[in-house]
Amino acid sequence: MTTDLPSRLLLGPGPSNVHESVLAACAQPLVGHLDPAFLAVLDEVQQNLRSLFGTRHPMTLPLSATGSAGMEACLVNLLEPGDRALIGVAGVFGVRMCEVAARAGADVTRIDSEPGTILDAAALAEAAARLRPKVVAFVHAETSTGVLQPVEEIARAAREAGALVVLDCVTSLAGVPLAIDDWGIDAVYSGTQKCLSCPPGLSPVSFSERALETVRARSRPVQSWYLDITLLAGYFGDDRTYHHTAPITAVLGLAQALRIVLAEGMEARAARHREAAESLITSLEPLGFTPLVAEAHRLPPLTSLRLPDSVHGFEGGEAGLRRRLLEAHGIEVGAGLGPLAGKIWRIGLMGENARKQSVERLTGALEQELG
Amino acid sequence: MTTDLPSRLLLGPGPSNVHESVLAACAQPLVGHLDPAFLAVLDEVQQNLRSLFGTRHPMTLPLSATGSAGMEACLVNLLEPGDRALIGVAGVFGVRMCEVAARAGADVTRIDSEPGTILDAAALAEAAARLRPKVVAFVHAETSTGVLQPVEEIARAAREAGALVVLDCVTSLAGVPLAIDDWGIDAVYSGTQKCLSCPPGLSPVSFSERALETVRARSRPVQSWYLDITLLAGYFGDDRTYHHTAPITAVLGLAQALRIVLAEGMEARAARHREAAESLITSLEPLGFTPLVAEAHRLPPLTSLRLPDSVHGFEGGEAGLRRRLLEAHGIEVGAGLGPLAGKIWRIGLMGENARKQSVERLTGALEQELG
Repeated sequence: MTTDLPSRLLLGPGPSNVHESVLAACAQPLVGHLDPAFLAVLDEVQQNLRSLFGTRHPMTLPLSATGSAGMEACLVNLLEPGDRALIGVAGVFGVRMCEVAARAGADVTRIDSEPGTILDAAALAEAAARLRPKVVAFVHAETSTGVLQPVEEIARAAREAGALVVLDCVTSLAGVPLAIDDWGIDAVYSGTQKCLSCPPGLSPVSFSERALETVRARSRPVQSWYLDITLLAGYFGDDRTYHHTAPITAVLGLAQALRIVLAEGMEARAARHREAAESLITSLEPLGFTPLVAEAHRLPPLTSLRLPDSVHGFEGGEAGLRRRLLEAHGIEVGAGLGPLAGKIWRIGLMGENARKQSVERLTGALEQELG
Repeated sequence: MTTDLPSRLLLGPGPSNVHESVLAACAQPLVGHLDPAFLAVLDEVQQNLRSLFGTRHPMTLPLSATGSAGMEACLVNLLEPGDRALIGVAGVFGVRMCEVAARAGADVTRIDSEPGTILDAAALAEAAARLRPKVVAFVHAETSTGVLQPVEEIARAAREAGALVVLDCVTSLAGVPLAIDDWGIDAVYSGTQKCLSCPPGLSPVSFSERALETVRARSRPVQSWYLDITLLAGYFGDDRTYHHTAPITAVLGLAQALRIVLAEGMEARAARHREAAESLITSLEPLGFTPLVAEAHRLPPLTSLRLPDSVHGFEGGEAGLRRRLLEAHGIEVGAGLGPLAGKIWRIGLMGENARKQSVERLTGALEQELG
């Protein structure tokens, strides 16, 4: 009676394919969200997330919603109406940060880069020094363009200007080494369906003590009861008191996915992501696909490629070829988003899929369709 | 390598135990959140949720977070700063509604009932006529007390006063027949881990056309980007455009759970919940447990019971006995919440667990411990 779903190789911007042991973990019979047996799993998940984020922050936890809610949690906890926020925008997810911050009543200044390029660290540093914002926020791994943003210079300048630093690591966590504490990040969020190779549904987040002090010192409550980190601390801290019912199944899946990541080791895993992305670019070059992003700033888990004329000339254009890949080859690739829609594809080689076999299957399918 | 979890009979306020076919659905390999195969499942889920809610509202969907976020979604979409909200409080979840509405900037008036009793419909009607609030909100199935609130009189009075009506159906959906359209409800939310017998993680919600018109006519954007129903309509409406990544695995589980509910039929399912609750009360009466709630207002999926002296006298008190039930018998029951903490237990017979066998196991264990 369960749904008969087709088999897919998921090479879009997420979700990625999930290891069968993670799927098996999601099929375990439930225990309660306050059961000591479950709380032990939660302890393990929080500890392993700290390890992957590169942080000692106690308030490191899987938020009970997807990555976009993680973004909202970071911004609405730290910002009050009238607070200044400086946001680096290098793509759709930077734009989303501006929108979320504005809805929290913040006075938002944005500094944009050209699509496919990194942010101008000097311009952000200058603006931070001039505006003295409460929050400086930007995206580490811009999923809409495939750019990996160098973090340290901007974060340092932001802290020197007295700001809290918020970082989007949705597509970098578990695919790229993170060092949140060394970089001086105060609030970070990610998702589970990218390099962690979990089902979507949770957002790993981490808040520094400095961030928590800021939340505790707010003049008015956090606008979101569900995302209020001071309330979440009751359940995700030492007390383990009820706030909302944790998504038990999703947490069990995440626990297993984290074990896989840590067993591989982050260094080996990052190398595997880099090698897969390099192999992708090399393999698709003969077909006319060219990288959008300069080599130094490419995000290994997600490669954005400009499309050759042969793709635009396919029946139904690039969307027609994506449909054909899905229907005839069982391969999902991602469309361009925002200003890059119709111009690029976003090919994710994330987590379980960051392997040569993924590249070979995609290359073979494209050769067949375009050759 | 997966977690070795104990086997539990979940007779607390949720989660309930999950049918093995739902667990199997959660272990299906992923497809993308924009894959036509997944969108077909989502169509089915939305249609089946409409059927269970008793509504034709197109904007009926599984929100990508737990029931508490469903509450927040209903309130923050409809309320703007300064709007008047009238809230009936018959327990902890009514109090939570006040808190969430206040954080949205609403001017909240609350009318309380004694714990374990229904709301005073006449008092709410009078207040609605006097205050002319934008929103009247209350809880259909108060999970903290086990009271089932008659809906129609309050909803009618609210609408006559020009208000939108928000209803919490977290513990009634799929356990008690709902008729949202006939009752004139404008926004309703639920959870998956109660009578639907799914893992927690999603919140089924439904918004009326009247509610959506109100959101579209707001003077400022909804404070939450993640929960903004006008943005969610892009994905959960006809366009199926990207807003956030839907929790695919959880939706597949929900799809299967809904098939089970509809195959049984709501009338038979409601009768099964009533019979299980009656059997529970009869079975535990000889041990000295007495219902908190008058017979006419009991919520079959969740029975709250006053505790006999034998329970208070157990080693470690009532908490000690709950721990003993969990550790020695694998049975979870729920503690009292808020002012009822330490005074009652909340015993859920929800979804898969609304059966005589659950009652017999619990009764046997309690007889052994207290006899």
